[in-house]
Amino acid sequence: MRNILVIGAGKSSSSLITYLLNKSVVENLHITVADVSLVVAESKIKNHKNGTAITLDISNKTEREKTIQKADIVVSMLPAHLHLNVAKDCLKFNKNMVSASYISNEMKALHAEATKKKLIFMNEIGLDPGIDHMSAMKVLDAIKEKGGKILLFESFCGGLVAPESDHNLWNYKFTWNPRNVVLAGQGGASKFLQEGKYKYIPYHKLFRRTEILTIDGYGKFEGYANRDSLKYKNVYGLNDILTLYRGTIRKVGFSRAWNIFVQLGMTDDSYTIEDSENMSYRDFTNSFLAYSPSDSVELKLRHYLKIDQDDIIWEKLLELDIFSSTKMVGLKNATPAQILEKILKETWTLNEGDKDMIVMQHLFGYELNGEKKQIVSSMVCIGDDQVYTAMAKTVGLPVAIATLKILNGEIKKPGVQIPIKKEVYEPILEELKENGIVFTEKKVPYLGYNPEIIAS
Amino acid sequence: MRNILVIGAGKSSSSLITYLLNKSVVENLHITVADVSLVVAESKIKNHKNGTAITLDISNKTEREKTIQKADIVVSMLPAHLHLNVAKDCLKFNKNMVSASYISNEMKALHAEATKKKLIFMNEIGLDPGIDHMSAMKVLDAIKEKGGKILLFESFCGGLVAPESDHNLWNYKFTWNPRNVVLAGQGGASKFLQEGKYKYIPYHKLFRRTEILTIDGYGKFEGYANRDSLKYKNVYGLNDILTLYRGTIRKVGFSRAWNIFVQLGMTDDSYTIEDSENMSYRDFTNSFLAYSPSDSVELKLRHYLKIDQDDIIWEKLLELDIFSSTKMVGLKNATPAQILEKILKETWTLNEGDKDMIVMQHLFGYELNGEKKQIVSSMVCIGDDQVYTAMAKTVGLPVAIATLKILNGEIKKPGVQIPIKKEVYEPILEELKENGIVFTEKKVPYLGYNPEIIAS
Repeated sequence: MRNILVIGAGKSSSSLITYLLNKSVVENLHITVADVSLVVAESKIKNHKNGTAITLDISNKTEREKTIQKADIVVSMLPAHLHLNVAKDCLKFNKNMVSASYISNEMKALHAEATKKKLIFMNEIGLDPGIDHMSAMKVLDAIKEKGGKILLFESFCGGLVAPESDHNLWNYKFTWNPRNVVLAGQGGASKFLQEGKYKYIPYHKLFRRTEILTIDGYGKFEGYANRDSLKYKNVYGLNDILTLYRGTIRKVGFSRAWNIFVQLGMTDDSYTIEDSENMSYRDFTNSFLAYSPSDSVELKLRHYLKIDQDDIIWEKLLELDIFSSTKMVGLKNATPAQILEKILKETWTLNEGDKDMIVMQHLFGYELNGEKKQIVSSMVCIGDDQVYTAMAKTVGLPVAIATLKILNGEIKKPGVQIPIKKEVYEPILEELKENGIVFTEKKVPYLGYNPEIIAS
Repeated sequence: MRNILVIGAGKSSSSLITYLLNKSVVENLHITVADVSLVVAESKIKNHKNGTAITLDISNKTEREKTIQKADIVVSMLPAHLHLNVAKDCLKFNKNMVSASYISNEMKALHAEATKKKLIFMNEIGLDPGIDHMSAMKVLDAIKEKGGKILLFESFCGGLVAPESDHNLWNYKFTWNPRNVVLAGQGGASKFLQEGKYKYIPYHKLFRRTEILTIDGYGKFEGYANRDSLKYKNVYGLNDILTLYRGTIRKVGFSRAWNIFVQLGMTDDSYTIEDSENMSYRDFTNSFLAYSPSDSVELKLRHYLKIDQDDIIWEKLLELDIFSSTKMVGLKNATPAQILEKILKETWTLNEGDKDMIVMQHLFGYELNGEKKQIVSSMVCIGDDQVYTAMAKTVGLPVAIATLKILNGEIKKPGVQIPIKKEVYEPILEELKENGIVFTEKKVPYLGYNPEIIAS
């Protein structure tokens, strides 16, 4: 029996653990799931004979070390800032390790030692980061192998509600951490490259500078720019690229309406509102509008943000009840962002039976033998239910697949790494395909970055 | 001879030092001016027989202590973060101290000890903070003394160019630290009270929510909200006030045009622009606009920010040459704010002979014997030249006057303080008047906060 330790049994671990349990008999595996909550860990094992649920306080060094020592490989599904101690233990006890989080500088610093000990510390092998790296590098490497020169790389990813569960005007429900959705895009300008020019979008304009994308069978979507697209220049080896853009996907019209909250200041998380507990939603909205002795909150908002009488944005705002004088905030010393999150949760929470959806699309522009070409690669994944969500599948399955392949010696190269090498991404993408996570590649005419699609 | 030590001989010390030198014979004073630059210190003394210029490295403890020991009172005109060591020395050697800077928490912490030693540490006694406190408290105290209840307090202050030197479309030149002008309003939402309601304006809307004010003989001005008006509730004892607002004054139309820079993201100081050194002004402007294979930077900007063909904003932008493809940024690793500052300095720097102007206006609304009343108190100060600027006069004269009154025992109450007590502000305002800094008070009908001036 080979022992796999999975630390953290939250939402995104369900598909991961089920995959490993399903493989456990054939592959001779024992899966230990450790979580602060035994109940949560047990719910993932479901009495499988090759699984054990245990409680683990990650801050308890003795307990943590004892648990890690018993494993043959460790999967850390902890919040990002908690991986490091696990990684250090793995180094100490010679264990390979897998995580879906962004690689930290502290993690990177372990590379030399991990390599020396022939250990694999695989990071960023979830969805985004994870599947994005693998599916992009597959196409990029193929273009380069043929001698092509990469001119453009645009990549979009989003967690949405599945079409069959899409019941509100925003075409959006929370399928992931609502707080991150409210704060998305904050903390500095978004940076990217368009046709050789560096471009910068301040937060307050981010949701008015979307790009439109189409996914066959699913219609039009929009993408707003992620904070830092430029770092992918180095990561993907795209040093001479002209257009480099990463974005977050929403259904068309979401960003234009979301911009209302940004403009009002409702997404601000940097200060607390006076007496927030006793405010109605109407009071909250009114706190971002000038006082008037005569005009309604509604008219003040319409006028302030120039919302036409027949603009669908208005219906979207009404759907959220932001003008209600009876619904109360009820949160003490809350920031605008916390209050907005509460208001949104009332309308944007998944109903029983609702399914989520992950959408990813890459655009690759390149020049080969003097000809300019473009490839679009798209993936859509729909959740099975509210346990095996699209998010859980797309985050957890690549982690699970990588874990088993490392354990079986199919992935060999040691060191602290992310899945951008062929020997890693090729077999994993192949197996993801068998699990319903499929990219469809399509050749299209080369347009470069050309928002109005003016043929040049 | 009584020894006054003035540390820091920058721009804002000229009127201060001249005032003290002018009084030195009658008052039996010797003024020592200490600065890192002897030349600068000497330029302020101008060989006056009762003045001495010395060099002082404020970080050199021995030197600093020796210098402070010799003084009877110490005026610190250093940058705000450097006052504390001076204050601690003053405590050690039993010296009174005066500064025009905002009182820091570290400074406040010295209150008990200063009081025990019967020392006066007078802070915030320049223009803003300083004259604003004194001129506001004078009216507020008078209303309270009569039994009036304060309903509204709005206060505006601005450093502008004098009408006779006002030669550009922005009606603005830098009369103070340009960097602070570029960064003004950043770092969090602006907070204030309007008719009992807390109001919050995010930075990106700040320059679109201005208030209009009129100053007799000088016409209309506009004010945009300062970051935190609410703290004046406690400072001025206005706990039941309905409207509390502090703002910065510009000529009408400035903010609307400045908003273009804010919207583009040009005032951002949080990241550096790639290859900023080799950019033209046009490249800089273009970096905030989407790429287009066909459209000009001009049209893209007009369209993005919806600037009509005949909008004066456009002329203001042209005046600054932000579309020039020949003028180069020439700054390495510069932030957008640093580049914008450079561009603005070319047009907004005072010419020889140009004069500056300080404008301050307070509005006081109150209820007395069942009747609502309003007082407007305004002050305009024009600079004499580029040494005795309005800024230097309004910052330096209250400091100088306070210093002499403390030295002469006319201001007696010990402790770390700001000039909000009658025994302090009354004689100082009186003497400021003799020096041409005069507030004109006017009774007007009570309107409350009523932006459209709809009679209620």
